[in-house]
Amino acid sequence: MHHTEAPSIFADIAPVRFEGKDSDNPLAFRYYDKDRLVLGKRMEDQLRIAACYWHNFCWTGLDPFGGQTFMRPWFEGGTPLALAEQKATQAFDFLERLDVPYYCFHDRDVAPEGSTPRESREHFLHMAERLAAHQERTGVKLLWGTANLFSHRRYMSGAGSNPDPEIFAMAALQVRDAMNATRQLGGENYVLWGGREGYETLLNTDMARELDQLGRFLTLAVEHKHKTGFKGTILIEPKPREPSKHQYDFDTATVYGFLKRYGLEHEVKVNIEANHATLSGHSFEHEIATAAALGIFGSLDINRGDPQLGWDTDQFPNNVPETAIALYHVMQAGGFTTGGCNFDAKVRRQSIDPVDLMHGHVGAMDVLARGLLDAEKLITDGRLASELEGRYRGWQAPLGQDIMKGGIDLDGLAEHVLARNQDVVPVSGRQEYLENLVNRIL
Amino acid sequence: MHHTEAPSIFADIAPVRFEGKDSDNPLAFRYYDKDRLVLGKRMEDQLRIAACYWHNFCWTGLDPFGGQTFMRPWFEGGTPLALAEQKATQAFDFLERLDVPYYCFHDRDVAPEGSTPRESREHFLHMAERLAAHQERTGVKLLWGTANLFSHRRYMSGAGSNPDPEIFAMAALQVRDAMNATRQLGGENYVLWGGREGYETLLNTDMARELDQLGRFLTLAVEHKHKTGFKGTILIEPKPREPSKHQYDFDTATVYGFLKRYGLEHEVKVNIEANHATLSGHSFEHEIATAAALGIFGSLDINRGDPQLGWDTDQFPNNVPETAIALYHVMQAGGFTTGGCNFDAKVRRQSIDPVDLMHGHVGAMDVLARGLLDAEKLITDGRLASELEGRYRGWQAPLGQDIMKGGIDLDGLAEHVLARNQDVVPVSGRQEYLENLVNRIL
Amino acid sequence: MHHTEAPSIFADIAPVRFEGKDSDNPLAFRYYDKDRLVLGKRMEDQLRIAACYWHNFCWTGLDPFGGQTFMRPWFEGGTPLALAEQKATQAFDFLERLDVPYYCFHDRDVAPEGSTPRESREHFLHMAERLAAHQERTGVKLLWGTANLFSHRRYMSGAGSNPDPEIFAMAALQVRDAMNATRQLGGENYVLWGGREGYETLLNTDMARELDQLGRFLTLAVEHKHKTGFKGTILIEPKPREPSKHQYDFDTATVYGFLKRYGLEHEVKVNIEANHATLSGHSFEHEIATAAALGIFGSLDINRGDPQLGWDTDQFPNNVPETAIALYHVMQAGGFTTGGCNFDAKVRRQSIDPVDLMHGHVGAMDVLARGLLDAEKLITDGRLASELEGRYRGWQAPLGQDIMKGGIDLDGLAEHVLARNQDVVPVSGRQEYLENLVNRIL
Amino acid sequence: MHHTEAPSIFADIAPVRFEGKDSDNPLAFRYYDKDRLVLGKRMEDQLRIAACYWHNFCWTGLDPFGGQTFMRPWFEGGTPLALAEQKATQAFDFLERLDVPYYCFHDRDVAPEGSTPRESREHFLHMAERLAAHQERTGVKLLWGTANLFSHRRYMSGAGSNPDPEIFAMAALQVRDAMNATRQLGGENYVLWGGREGYETLLNTDMARELDQLGRFLTLAVEHKHKTGFKGTILIEPKPREPSKHQYDFDTATVYGFLKRYGLEHEVKVNIEANHATLSGHSFEHEIATAAALGIFGSLDINRGDPQLGWDTDQFPNNVPETAIALYHVMQAGGFTTGGCNFDAKVRRQSIDPVDLMHGHVGAMDVLARGLLDAEKLITDGRLASELEGRYRGWQAPLGQDIMKGGIDLDGLAEHVLARNQDVVPVSGRQEYLENLVNRIL
Repeated sequence: MHHTEAPSIFADIAPVRFEGKDSDNPLAFRYYDKDRLVLGKRMEDQLRIAACYWHNFCWTGLDPFGGQTFMRPWFEGGTPLALAEQKATQAFDFLERLDVPYYCFHDRDVAPEGSTPRESREHFLHMAERLAAHQERTGVKLLWGTANLFSHRRYMSGAGSNPDPEIFAMAALQVRDAMNATRQLGGENYVLWGGREGYETLLNTDMARELDQLGRFLTLAVEHKHKTGFKGTILIEPKPREPSKHQYDFDTATVYGFLKRYGLEHEVKVNIEANHATLSGHSFEHEIATAAALGIFGSLDINRGDPQLGWDTDQFPNNVPETAIALYHVMQAGGFTTGGCNFDAKVRRQSIDPVDLMHGHVGAMDVLARGLLDAEKLITDGRLASELEGRYRGWQAPLGQDIMKGGIDLDGLAEHVLARNQDVVPVSGRQEYLENLVNRIL
Repeated sequence: MHHTEAPSIFADIAPVRFEGKDSDNPLAFRYYDKDRLVLGKRMEDQLRIAACYWHNFCWTGLDPFGGQTFMRPWFEGGTPLALAEQKATQAFDFLERLDVPYYCFHDRDVAPEGSTPRESREHFLHMAERLAAHQERTGVKLLWGTANLFSHRRYMSGAGSNPDPEIFAMAALQVRDAMNATRQLGGENYVLWGGREGYETLLNTDMARELDQLGRFLTLAVEHKHKTGFKGTILIEPKPREPSKHQYDFDTATVYGFLKRYGLEHEVKVNIEANHATLSGHSFEHEIATAAALGIFGSLDINRGDPQLGWDTDQFPNNVPETAIALYHVMQAGGFTTGGCNFDAKVRRQSIDPVDLMHGHVGAMDVLARGLLDAEKLITDGRLASELEGRYRGWQAPLGQDIMKGGIDLDGLAEHVLARNQDVVPVSGRQEYLENLVNRIL
Repeated sequence: MHHTEAPSIFADIAPVRFEGKDSDNPLAFRYYDKDRLVLGKRMEDQLRIAACYWHNFCWTGLDPFGGQTFMRPWFEGGTPLALAEQKATQAFDFLERLDVPYYCFHDRDVAPEGSTPRESREHFLHMAERLAAHQERTGVKLLWGTANLFSHRRYMSGAGSNPDPEIFAMAALQVRDAMNATRQLGGENYVLWGGREGYETLLNTDMARELDQLGRFLTLAVEHKHKTGFKGTILIEPKPREPSKHQYDFDTATVYGFLKRYGLEHEVKVNIEANHATLSGHSFEHEIATAAALGIFGSLDINRGDPQLGWDTDQFPNNVPETAIALYHVMQAGGFTTGGCNFDAKVRRQSIDPVDLMHGHVGAMDVLARGLLDAEKLITDGRLASELEGRYRGWQAPLGQDIMKGGIDLDGLAEHVLARNQDVVPVSGRQEYLENLVNRIL
Repeated sequence: MHHTEAPSIFADIAPVRFEGKDSDNPLAFRYYDKDRLVLGKRMEDQLRIAACYWHNFCWTGLDPFGGQTFMRPWFEGGTPLALAEQKATQAFDFLERLDVPYYCFHDRDVAPEGSTPRESREHFLHMAERLAAHQERTGVKLLWGTANLFSHRRYMSGAGSNPDPEIFAMAALQVRDAMNATRQLGGENYVLWGGREGYETLLNTDMARELDQLGRFLTLAVEHKHKTGFKGTILIEPKPREPSKHQYDFDTATVYGFLKRYGLEHEVKVNIEANHATLSGHSFEHEIATAAALGIFGSLDINRGDPQLGWDTDQFPNNVPETAIALYHVMQAGGFTTGGCNFDAKVRRQSIDPVDLMHGHVGAMDVLARGLLDAEKLITDGRLASELEGRYRGWQAPLGQDIMKGGIDLDGLAEHVLARNQDVVPVSGRQEYLENLVNRIL
C-alpha cells in the first residue's frame, strides 16, 4: 500500500459483526449469522453475498438532472492510476469491515481508460494485480467480473451489435482481458450485460443482423472460456431497456430463445436482477422460476426497484417477505452453484456520508438473512410444495400419462371426451389459502 | 335464410364503396380502393382485411364495472341456436356491406355452448354449415378460425396448461373440431391465443410442468394439421397478461424460445396484435420486426391500445403514420402469405348504434389503406432502406467477414486492436434525420 | 329468516376467533385480537374493519375474458327480490362468522334494479329494511353506503357529468335514497366513487362543463346531508381511470383541487384505496400522507394491486411491512374518526369455494392486525418521528421563522446569502439508515 | 465577440428557409412558413417557437450508463467564463440559422457556477449582458428564463422545500437574479420547474411542512414580480417524478390545487410538457384541456416521450396528427398570450454531429407547422366543435338550467324522476365517427 494514500473514509466504522436480534447497534447484523446452518449449509455459503465496485466506489451521485454529490478522496487529486489504487485499497477496507465473502467489478471500475487500447489494457492488468494482492490479503473473493461495454462513447451504438466491426473488435479485446483477469483472480462467473446491445430506433437498426452479431460475440466468449480453461459460468444479465430503448436480452425467456437460436443453451446461464425483472413486467420470483424451468438459472443481482418508477433505481432490498419468496424459489431450484447474491444496489444520491454505504449493506444483508431463514421454514414445513404437487395429481393417472408420452392424439382425446360426455368440474385454485399459509409460516 | 328472422340492423346502411379522397360521405372509403395496385398487388390482396365475429357480434358492451349497453336482436328472445343463426345472418350482412374479403371467429362466437360436450359439438357443426353457406353466398372468406379456451369456467386455470388432464382433453376436442371446421371452411390459418395459459400466482403453479403440457398441446395441434392435410398456418398470438397475471406466450421473442424448446419453430408462426405488443412493453413494429428477424412472422391483429391504459382496449387504429411504419415492416419482410389484417378491434361501449360498428371499420380501413400507400412510398423512395444498409457497410470488409464466418477468435480480435492501437471514432446514428426522412416521404 | 331459503353456504364454517400466534387453524385469527389495546384503543376500534357486499356476494367471477365461475344459490332460481333477500341473509351469516364490526354496500348490491325508477326505489327501500333487521339481529354496523352510478347502461357516459341532465336527475334520485338509507342504517360515512365521471375521448367531452356539473352534484349531496341531519362524513374515492380512460377524481391531490374549486374542502374527505393509489402512480402511504397534509383524510379501502398489472386487481393485502407503513401514517395523522378499513378486495375468480371468501378475509385481517401492532411499535419507539422532526430543525431558527412568517422577501434573502457569501453544505438524507430502523423495529 | 473564439460548428449550415412542400432539401422548411396567416395571425406569431439552451448547448450526451458523446469546442479548453461566452456566440449562431423567434435558458446554462455565491452571481450578470447583446444583434427574443435549482448538490433535497432554510435562501437568490435578468432581457414568462421539490422517501419527509415552504417560495416569487414590475407570466411546469420519486407539481390538476391552497390561482399558470404529461398518466391534450378548463393555461414544452419508456426522453415530436390535436386544444382555448412552444427536446446521444441539432429542430418545426395547419382545418370546418356542443344541448333546457343555477335540490330531482317514472335512454358517444371526422379533415 502506498504510504501517501489518504486515510480510509471507513476508518471510523468498526467491523460489522453478528450481534443477534436484540442488538441496538445499527451497524451490527441481527440475522446475518454467517456460520449458522441453513438447509444444510453455512448461511454465508448459501447466500454467497457480494458487494459491487461500481455503485459503491465509482458512482459520484450523478443523475440525469444533477451532478456529483459524493465526495470521495479517490475521485480527484492524483493521476488516474494512483486514484484507482487508492480506490481499491479503500474498497477492500470496506469489504473487510462489512465481512462479505465476495465482490464484483467491471474492468473500467477498477482501472481507468487510457489514451490508447494498449494503455487501457496496461492499466487494467496493473490493477488486476493489485486486486489479486488485496484478495490475498483480505480473503475476499471474486464472485464475477465483467467488461464495461456501454459507458464509453465508442459503444454508444452497442458493442457486439455495433454497426462497425472495429468496435466489435474493441469490445472483444475488453472481454478477452476481463475474462482472463476473472480467471486469474479466481472469479466464479463471468457476466455480460448488454446495456447498449439493442436499439434506439428501428429506423437505423437491422435487427436480424445485430442478433447474429451478438450470437457470434457470445459464441466467441464461450470458445475463449474453453480455450483458456476458465471453469466459471458465463452469465447473461437480462434487462428490457435503459439506457437503450430496447435491449435484446429483454428478460429470461428472451435470453433462452436467443441461446437456443445460437446453440448456447447449455453453455450460458442468466444473472437475474430484481429491478430488471420488474422493469420487464415480471416479478423477481417469476424470472427465477422461469430460469429454473428452462434450466438456465445462474446468479442474482440483489436490489429493489420502485414500483412507481419506470427506471432502474437499484435500491437495497428492504421487504423481508418478498425476499423470502425469491429465495424460496432459488432454494427449491437447488440453491446456488457458482452464482450468489450480488448487491447491484446503491445508496440514494442524498446519502452522502461514507457510513450510508455501510447502512445500505448491513440492512440488506439482514433482509437476505431473514428471507433465507423464512425460505428455510417454508421448505421445512413442506406444505407449500405438497399443495403444489397435489394440484397436478391428475397427471399421474393414465390419461395424463398418455398425453405427455404421446400415446394419444387430438382425435383420441376428442373421442375420450365425447365418450364420457360430461363437463369437467373445476377445482378452486386456493390462492388466498396459500398466501395465508406463507404468512403463517413466515 | 329463415323468413322469421328479424330484419338486419344494418339494413339502412348502404354498401360501403370507394369514393375517393374528396368524398364527404362518412360511410365511404376515401383511400381503401381495393383494386388499386400497391407494390405489385391489388390493395385488397396486400392487406387481406378481416372483421372479427367476437367484438362485433358477441360482445354486449359489458366491462368489469358495468353491464350490457348494446341491444342486438340476437342477444335474446329465442333458442340459443336460433339466435346464433340470426347472428350469423346479420354478421354476413355486415361483412357484405363493409366489403371486407375475410372474417375470423372462435367456435363459441358462432355456436352456443351446449349442456354436454356432444351437444356443444353438434351446435358448432351445425353452425359451421351455416357459415359455409353464408361464405358461399357472399364470397366472404375465412382468414382464420380458433377455439375459445378461456371463457368457460372449466378453463379458469388454463386449457393446455390446466392442472387437470380431463380439461386438457376438453380443450383438445374443441381444437380438433375448430381446426377441422377451419379446414372445411377454407380458412387460411388456425390461431391459438392462450389467454389463460399462464398463472395467477406462482404459489399454485409448476411452471416447468405447465410449459411441457403446453408444448405437448401445440405438438398435438401440429400433428393434427398434418394428419388432416390442413394447408393453413398455425399461429400463436402472444400477449403478456390479461386476463392472467402472466401468460406464457408473453411476446414474440418468448414464443420463439418456446417453439425452439419443443422443436416447432418451423411449424408455427405468430399472429401479432398491436395492443398486445404495447402491453408487453414493445412497439407494434418491434414485434413485427422481431418476428421477421426470427422467421416466424405470420399475421396481424389490427387495433390500437391507449398508451395511458394498462389493459387491452382493442380500439380501431386511427394514427396513419404509426400504421405506415408497421406496414412498412410487413412489406419489407415480404408481405403477407396466409396472414392478413384482422381487426381485433371494438367500438367503445358507448357507441351503441349499429352504424358505429360501420364507422369503426370504415375509418380504420382507410387508415390501413393510407398506411399501405405510405409504406409503398417509403419502399419506392428507397432512401430509408439504403441508409440502413449503408450503416452496416463495414461488415462487408475483411474483418467483419472474418468475425461472422468464425475465422477469428477473441485473442485474434484483441491482437488486431492492439496492433492498430487507436480508438475507433463512432458515427452519428442520425435518428432525427431518418425520422424527418419518413415525415418527408409520407 | 324465510324457511324456504337455501341453507347458508357458510354453514360449515365455524365462527372465526382469535387463537393466538401458535394456532394451526387456518380459519382462526393469530394476530387480530379485537379487544387488545393498541395505542389506547381496542384493536377493533382502531381498525374499524368492514367487509364489502359487492365483491363477496354480487360478483360472479366474471372478467373481460370469461364468465361466471362462482355458483351461489342467490344468483338464480327465484325472483330478483327473493334472491336479494337470500343474499342478505347469507351475507350477514358470513359477516357474523367472520366477526367484523362493519360492512359497506352500493344500493344496487343489496336490491335489484326494477323496471321503473319507482320499482327500483321500492326494491331498495324494502331491502334497506331487511338490512336494518339483520344489523339489529347481528350487531354488524354500516361503515358506509353508496349508490352504484356506473353499472347500468344509462350511466355509460357518467352520472353527475352526463351530457343529459335527465341522467343527472336519475343519479340524484339514487344518491338521495342511498344517503337517506345510510343515515337510517346508522352509516358513519357516505361515499361517492365516480367510476364513469370522466371521459373516454376528449373529442366528445367538454371538460370545463363536466367539472361544473360534478361540482354541482357534490354540492347537492352536501346540502342534502345538512338538510337531513346526516352526521356521517361524505367521502370521495379517487381513482385515476378504469373503467373510464380518465376519471376526474384522479388522486387525492386532484380531489383536493376540485373541492377547493367548489368550496367544499371542509365538507368532503377522501376514501383512499390502495390499488387506486398505485394505479395513479403513487404509493398507498403517499395518498394517505397527502390527504393528511391537506386535511382531507377520511377512510381506507383496503386491498392490494399487482405491481405488474395495469388494472384494479383488488386483491387482499398480504404484505405486513407495507401494511405497517400505511397504518403508521394513519395513526400519525390521528387515526380514524368516522372512517375505517373497508376490504374492497375479492378472492381470485379461481377461488370458487365459499371458504375461499373466509380465507381471504381472515388472512387479511391478520395482516392488518400485524401492521397495526408494528405501527404501534414504530410510534412507541419514537425514533422515526424524532429523526424526521430533527431534519427540519433549521426552520426553528430566525431565518426559517422569518421566511415562513413573511418577514423577508426575495431581495432580503438574496442579500442574506450574498452577505454570508459561502455555499451551504448539504446533509445526508439517511434513507438507508431510516429503512433499516423500520426493519429493526418491526 | 472575442476574435480568439473557435469557428462556429454550425458554419457549414445554410440558414434554414421555407422552400415549400416539394423541396428535397433536408434542411429547409416544407411547412413552417412564418409569414403565412393561420387563424388570423402569422404562423410565427401563433406558434411562438423557442429553442432551449440546455439540451442543445449544455448537455454532453451523458446518460446514467455512459459519458459524454458530443464534442463541442465550448466544453473544454478555456476558463469557464470564456467557454460560456463561446457557447453563447455559437448558440445564437444556431438560433439565427434556424430562424426561431425565441430561446429559453436556466441561469446555470448560460453562466458557470462560481466558487462563492457572489462569484456565481457575477458570472451570471456578466453573461446576461452578453445575451442582451446577442439578442440585440440577432433579433432573437427570450420566451422565458428560469433558475436551475436541481443540479447542484446543495439542492439534492430540494430548493424551496429543502429541510435547511439556508438552502431556501440560496434558491431565493438565484430566482431573484434569474427573474430580474428575464425582465431585463424582455423575457415574456418566468418558469419554475421543481425537479427536486418532492421526495425520495416519506420516511424523511414532512409533506405538510414542505408544501407550506413551497407555497411560501412561490408567493415570494409572485411578490417579487409585482415589486419589480415584471410583466411576464409566472409558470409552474408540472412533472410527476424524475429525478425525485415524487414531485409536488405532479400534474396540472395537482398544481391547480396547490395554487388554490396558497391563493395564487390568479397569479401563476402552467407550462405543460408533452413528455411530463405522459409520464403522469395523461395525454398531452388532456393536460392542455385541463389547464384551459381550470383557467391556468400558460405555455408548452414541446417534445415527445416514448410510450414504452418510463423516463423523460425529451425527443422531438414527429407525429403530425398527435401534434394537431394538441394544438387544436390550444387554439380552441384562445391560443398563446405570453406563452409559446419551447422545444424541450434533445437529439439522441448517438446524434453526435452538429447538423443533427439542426435536423431535430427543422423536422419538428415542420411537424408543428403541419399540426397547426391541421388544427386550423378542424376549427374552420367547425363540425368537431359543433358536435361537441350538440352533445350537451339538453343542459340548455329548463331542468339543466335549474340544476346548474341551484334552483332544485336532491329531493326535487328525485321527485322529478319519480313523477316521470321511466328510464332515460342513453345516446351513442359516437367516438369512432368523431375520430374518423378528424382523420377526414386532416
